Amino acid sequence: MADAALFLDPGLVQRFAEIVGARHALTSQQDIAPYLIEPRGLWHGRTSLVLRPGSVDEVSRIMRLATETGTPIVPQSGNTGLVGAQVPDAVSGQVVLSLSRLNRIREVDLLSNTVTAEAGVILQTLQETAAQAGRLFPLSLAAQGSCQIGGNLSSNAGGTNVLAYGNARELCLGVEVVLPTGEVFDDLRKLKKDNTGYDLKDLFVGAEGTLGVITAAVLKLFPMPKGREVAFVGLPSAEAALQLFAMASDRAGSSLTAFELIGQRPYDFTLAHAAGVVRPLTSDWPWYVLMEISSGRSAEDARGLIEDILGAAIEGDVAGDAVIAASLSQAEALWNFREVLPEAQKPEGASIKHDISVPIAAIPAFIDKAGKAVEQVAPGARPVCFGHMGDGNLHYNVSRPADGEDAAFLALYRAVNDAVHDVVRDFAGSISAEHGIGQLKRDELIATAPPMAIDLMRRVKAAFDPAGIMNPGKVI
Amino acid sequence: MADAALFLDPGLVQRFAEIVGARHALTSQQDIAPYLIEPRGLWHGRTSLVLRPGSVDEVSRIMRLATETGTPIVPQSGNTGLVGAQVPDAVSGQVVLSLSRLNRIREVDLLSNTVTAEAGVILQTLQETAAQAGRLFPLSLAAQGSCQIGGNLSSNAGGTNVLAYGNARELCLGVEVVLPTGEVFDDLRKLKKDNTGYDLKDLFVGAEGTLGVITAAVLKLFPMPKGREVAFVGLPSAEAALQLFAMASDRAGSSLTAFELIGQRPYDFTLAHAAGVVRPLTSDWPWYVLMEISSGRSAEDARGLIEDILGAAIEGDVAGDAVIAASLSQAEALWNFREVLPEAQKPEGASIKHDISVPIAAIPAFIDKAGKAVEQVAPGARPVCFGHMGDGNLHYNVSRPADGEDAAFLALYRAVNDAVHDVVRDFAGSISAEHGIGQLKRDELIATAPPMAIDLMRRVKAAFDPAGIMNPGKVI
Repeated sequence: MADAALFLDPGLVQRFAEIVGARHALTSQQDIAPYLIEPRGLWHGRTSLVLRPGSVDEVSRIMRLATETGTPIVPQSGNTGLVGAQVPDAVSGQVVLSLSRLNRIREVDLLSNTVTAEAGVILQTLQETAAQAGRLFPLSLAAQGSCQIGGNLSSNAGGTNVLAYGNARELCLGVEVVLPTGEVFDDLRKLKKDNTGYDLKDLFVGAEGTLGVITAAVLKLFPMPKGREVAFVGLPSAEAALQLFAMASDRAGSSLTAFELIGQRPYDFTLAHAAGVVRPLTSDWPWYVLMEISSGRSAEDARGLIEDILGAAIEGDVAGDAVIAASLSQAEALWNFREVLPEAQKPEGASIKHDISVPIAAIPAFIDKAGKAVEQVAPGARPVCFGHMGDGNLHYNVSRPADGEDAAFLALYRAVNDAVHDVVRDFAGSISAEHGIGQLKRDELIATAPPMAIDLMRRVKAAFDPAGIMNPGKVI
Repeated sequence: MADAALFLDPGLVQRFAEIVGARHALTSQQDIAPYLIEPRGLWHGRTSLVLRPGSVDEVSRIMRLATETGTPIVPQSGNTGLVGAQVPDAVSGQVVLSLSRLNRIREVDLLSNTVTAEAGVILQTLQETAAQAGRLFPLSLAAQGSCQIGGNLSSNAGGTNVLAYGNARELCLGVEVVLPTGEVFDDLRKLKKDNTGYDLKDLFVGAEGTLGVITAAVLKLFPMPKGREVAFVGLPSAEAALQLFAMASDRAGSSLTAFELIGQRPYDFTLAHAAGVVRPLTSDWPWYVLMEISSGRSAEDARGLIEDILGAAIEGDVAGDAVIAASLSQAEALWNFREVLPEAQKPEGASIKHDISVPIAAIPAFIDKAGKAVEQVAPGARPVCFGHMGDGNLHYNVSRPADGEDAAFLALYRAVNDAVHDVVRDFAGSISAEHGIGQLKRDELIATAPPMAIDLMRRVKAAFDPAGIMNPGKVI
């Protein structure tokens, strides 16, 4: 417990604590514990200090002191990230900088369709604030009740609404960032067009806190759709799902707001293990799609669109069966079916997870090749494939063989990972489509990305954080 | 003519020429001249060598030699840029690197909806290639018949379709870049989602050739709209135009594909000076809007939408008068009216131009304040205001007083510029919304941007181009 490296000099702790006030400088391991626990329990970080600043000025003073003393800082907002970017290491005395108290919505501008929010605003609060103003803030993901927008931006979060509205980067017009030196880079613009030099904003977004601390952002709002329809579709093959996607895109354009692919196995797991779910279709299929249409015009318009798409898909033998939610509660039940998929996988034993993307056209071939590759290294293992097909993004998880044992399967973690990621690279895909790199994929990124990409990223890192105090050990 | 600084060592010229072949190494001033002439005639660059490589490998070898010998390189594609980024200076022996021969379309992928094109492909060729494949490549601007995609990306071009489809950056999924050292950074991905480290792609896009040479890119394609309708609307005020924009956005969403504001003065100039234009409306108004609706569904659908919007706008006394093009040729005539505005300004004498953006909600207040500011420094000068209102982007040009003289007015260039840009800054706007910085606005950017932004940009520049050979003297 008392390794010297972990614990900061008491005088330094005191100086940090004076910036935020004693109440907001957590030093007891009991108070600190929640900041070290992350969703999957993969990392066991340790620290002797968590700082909870209440203003941008306090963040600035913390970073100035960190630079002066060479103290490594780990920014953290909602602590829901899946790659360990928000967790300190266990040995080098990193200080956690929690942004949770920076939780003001600074402005809602209905004419410019923007909201300016601080890093600690919970995503769901942002969605609700937008809705109260008659607008949509479209970023939507499983952790929305606790994740915070600073983390969403730092990880360039994706989720189920990227198809029509873009990821966190595309939803962000401007940022306010505290640099490692404590200087505040105020780039809180509301502009759709601004060609005055290099695109610094998009460097900070997705940098996982390794270049600076995002303290606030200007985000885009959209008109609230006047109609939404959700359908659940059964399909004979992944190729058919791709065809359905092409048909739906062609007919609905940006009114196609979700297109989620679900394999037969996760479908069956959910029926078997998730409490209270309703079987969406009476017939069974190798593949399913949850499709959402949003209309800016009317409920009838959304209905007409989705009926048109499904009618054509069934008539053309692309879709085998389909149901359209007849009520809001049915629509919620279908979405719930999609959302519980990861949880419903757990009773089937250990799982090796992947968050990949490939060009949309390559999805059927990827699924085929990845399945064979997994079978080679882990015979009998069960691929559980679902995800945001419209974005080319699959959560390609692999459950242990039905009659296998967790430990034996998890011993193959690296081999299964490599097998799947090799196929991803064959299709010029990404080994982290939406969750980021953090600690989880850092070594693999460095080992497998083009050396020049790593070199360029390191140059950026050195240019912005020459002392290496911003979230060291993450990304690169 | 023969200043020593300008002319390269003959041995070095020979080494560069050997890379591309003598035919493609232009050394006679007659051959070189077209590469030094730019649209507004503001810069008079000089060089003793223009290189026209025919492959990425040749670009790579040129850059390697440039690094070895410290030779400054100015990348150029279509040579239509308006800020002098593509023109060498007149004194320091910069070599022009023309990308025009890299003009292959490498691939059209209809399932992934992407086109992979080399830097020298003319924008219009790209549009036509997409159309032949039943797709839309939406980037559209006045110079499209001669500008090339490499320059469009390097300047993050805007144009008339940004409202619904985004600017060049948003249309680009991946890039291939030759770095100053000659190394090729191959990031030609087709992925909508990829969170594997820093966003390098968006650094190269919009960098105006100061960080590397974009040699190819993966670009997004969209379904070709099935219906398009164009209307011309007369309005009592800029506030009313803003209201109309809100109504049209709310009803049409992303089907609102253009919303161009036109002031009374450019309208009148066009009627007075442009050959063959047709008066769009019989009644006169202080402001006009050209509005385009595109439907992914049908021609009738587009018609229904635009009629719905205009009906509500006229009933609500937002719009004073409106006409919907009854045929394709009428639609083209209305677009033509918009496109000839800049040209029709010329007979009215000298003009001081601005390419600004402000938050959309601030447009009426900006116009009011900018008008007063101009009147202060140049009494009687005539603001000529038009532009992409839906993007917050106005081309706020100022013509000399009707009875004034060009030279006297142009002597006020700096004062008028400063007056307008000061108002832009009051509204947290941008002094270069879509044309970039180049040589034209470099000094002003450095003088007026937050020093920290300039500092960060310089760090990026130094990290990517430590020897300073990539398009020196541009941007920062």
